[in-house]
Amino acid sequence: MDNSSDSINRVKVKINGEYYYLKGTAPAEHIEKLAAYVDEKVTFVGENYPRLSTVNVTILAALLITEDLFQLKQEYEEFLDTFDAKRKDL
Amino acid sequence: MDNSSDSINRVKVKINGEYYYLKGTAPAEHIEKLAAYVDEKVTFVGENYPRLSTVNVTILAALLITEDLFQLKQEYEEFLDTFDAKRKDL
Repeated sequence: MDNSSDSINRVKVKINGEYYYLKGTAPAEHIEKLAAYVDEKVTFVGENYPRLSTVNVTILAALLITEDLFQLKQEYEEFLDTFDAKRKDL
Repeated sequence: MDNSSDSINRVKVKINGEYYYLKGTAPAEHIEKLAAYVDEKVTFVGENYPRLSTVNVTILAALLITEDLFQLKQEYEEFLDTFDAKRKDL
């Protein structure tokens, strides 16, 4: 894949009260959305488990995001199965 | 929602070389899969960015998992749009 024409965006984001500079070829708005999602999860875990270390807060947040991913994957697969079953009925 | 009949599973998992005990009503196998996914991402980031602190490694891993989630969401939505467009053709 030739990405030579893609420019690199450098975006300043705030996650868990810290500023990070993220770089990527994705649009700045996309990078900001990713960061906002992670920040939301990390903040949620930090507020609900105030005794956890920062590392463990981020690990638990990563697990919650993975749960979102797995749930969506399952929903998608179930939909595809239904869709495929309906195609066979045609 | 009544979850009173759900038993709580307590699962020992290894993420980034550390052992964690995760609790949840999900089957142990599901919790292990979540942990394995997070461990894979954290290990990948740690190996590729050895100078990052552990917190920043986990933050970056969480961002990569969120990117997986957003990509799947976009794919699913595009599929639903196509599916809906086809329904209208019927």
